[in-house]
Amino acid sequence: MLITQVSKNKCFGGHVVKYEHHSEELGCDMKFNVFLPKESITQKVPAIFFLSGLTCTEDNFIQKSGAMAEASKHGIALIAPDTSPRGVSIEGDSDSWDFGTGAGFYVDATEEKWAKHYRMYSYIVKELHALVMQQLPINEERVSVMGHSMGGHGALTIYIKNPSQFKTASAFSPIANPSNCPWGQKALSGYLGSDKETWKAYDTVELLKSHLNQKLDILVDVGTADNFLAKELLIDQLEETVKQLGRETEFTIRRQEGYDHSYFFISTFIADHIQHHANLLKK
Amino acid sequence: MLITQVSKNKCFGGHVVKYEHHSEELGCDMKFNVFLPKESITQKVPAIFFLSGLTCTEDNFIQKSGAMAEASKHGIALIAPDTSPRGVSIEGDSDSWDFGTGAGFYVDATEEKWAKHYRMYSYIVKELHALVMQQLPINEERVSVMGHSMGGHGALTIYIKNPSQFKTASAFSPIANPSNCPWGQKALSGYLGSDKETWKAYDTVELLKSHLNQKLDILVDVGTADNFLAKELLIDQLEETVKQLGRETEFTIRRQEGYDHSYFFISTFIADHIQHHANLLKK
Repeated sequence: MLITQVSKNKCFGGHVVKYEHHSEELGCDMKFNVFLPKESITQKVPAIFFLSGLTCTEDNFIQKSGAMAEASKHGIALIAPDTSPRGVSIEGDSDSWDFGTGAGFYVDATEEKWAKHYRMYSYIVKELHALVMQQLPINEERVSVMGHSMGGHGALTIYIKNPSQFKTASAFSPIANPSNCPWGQKALSGYLGSDKETWKAYDTVELLKSHLNQKLDILVDVGTADNFLAKELLIDQLEETVKQLGRETEFTIRRQEGYDHSYFFISTFIADHIQHHANLLKK
Repeated sequence: MLITQVSKNKCFGGHVVKYEHHSEELGCDMKFNVFLPKESITQKVPAIFFLSGLTCTEDNFIQKSGAMAEASKHGIALIAPDTSPRGVSIEGDSDSWDFGTGAGFYVDATEEKWAKHYRMYSYIVKELHALVMQQLPINEERVSVMGHSMGGHGALTIYIKNPSQFKTASAFSPIANPSNCPWGQKALSGYLGSDKETWKAYDTVELLKSHLNQKLDILVDVGTADNFLAKELLIDQLEETVKQLGRETEFTIRRQEGYDHSYFFISTFIADHIQHHANLLKK
């Protein structure tokens, strides 16, 4: 399946390119943005997938994070997918901002109503990853994943389950334990059904307990003024699990005083995150 | 008149604050964004006004330019006003994207239909400037102005006419000679009437000819792939006038190969522009 160019804007010596393509996994047409640094003209470059949060499209990160300033310094590509299938019509998919459209939660749905289209996990890990490696100048050996909020959840779970495919992960304000927060419970019960055992495959805290034989390297930033910190993100539960498992050396979890859940927070620390990825991608 | 806080987000150690207030000049309520660097907690800081382009609000620059990364390094505040009166209802004010709402053009209208509300020149130079100096920790002696497209026109004309109030100006893709381009002719005839003599007060190329006794210091960046370059921006006319008047030392006009009119272009060169302002504001 070919990706086709929608728009192309020069930025920091490279280009931001919007592509569209038909997704077999999602059964619909999808768009995504890529920043290709100038180095990509002559060689394959490392890349970071950025998974966005609830209500976002492929545009939010590319327009608001300031990431290209830093990615261009390191010669790293950025890949920003959308957050759910688009243009499919399923009853109830637009009733709320935290389920359905704009809220795919990076899972493969098993509930019949959603199972045909809501396959964002396989879309990111298999289909989009393969399309990008085949058709863009990306070095498949040097790829990692980053995300925000729902996308932070996506980045951490995808990395833990696919460590040979993604060299590291980092997250801003991730939903770290979705089985135990309202956003997560709504999404996981809706897409996967009521058997909570099935939710564990998409829960960072649970995956840490079952994936013990790999050495992770994860950076997490969260703001202390984030309205969702206590109720939805459950960073305390993540920290406690990391300690209980003795995995402290695999995590850097930072609480940034006074910062909230917005892109003003992300933009402040995006340089640190890209540096974290560059350290591992450019080894 | 008091400005009241609408929202406040921590960003690069300082804060982005959205304010609203009643404008006497415009006869309506207005919003604007300010970035206050952390230094502003203990001292008055320099500030750059950023005037946005057609269709923009107070949000575009603050969300998309990446400017806070650089302004925070220099301890400089950013002030981002809206681009027209809001919430007033004048027949025809929403008929087109390049006139009326979102397109105040930084002039004081004299045509009766627009004269009551469309006073963006006095709003920026007098009212908002005064409000900000009175109520925020800004050093009145260290203020400058920057802008994009219609706002680049605004920045250059406002600086040339008020050199004691604004220490320097810079512009991305400015409408440099509005008397001679379609956007400018539509706006200036609409707001000021058909007598082209009155347009000269709001035309950078014309103002350069009449304001000969001041030493300017202006940085202009324009992209060679800007769709509006030849027809609307008229940078050639600006360069020719600068040469004819022997004012080359007062201008740095750069043509950036392959860049367009978008915020991807602005974000690439915003650091250079803030450095230009810092050199003069922090003397």
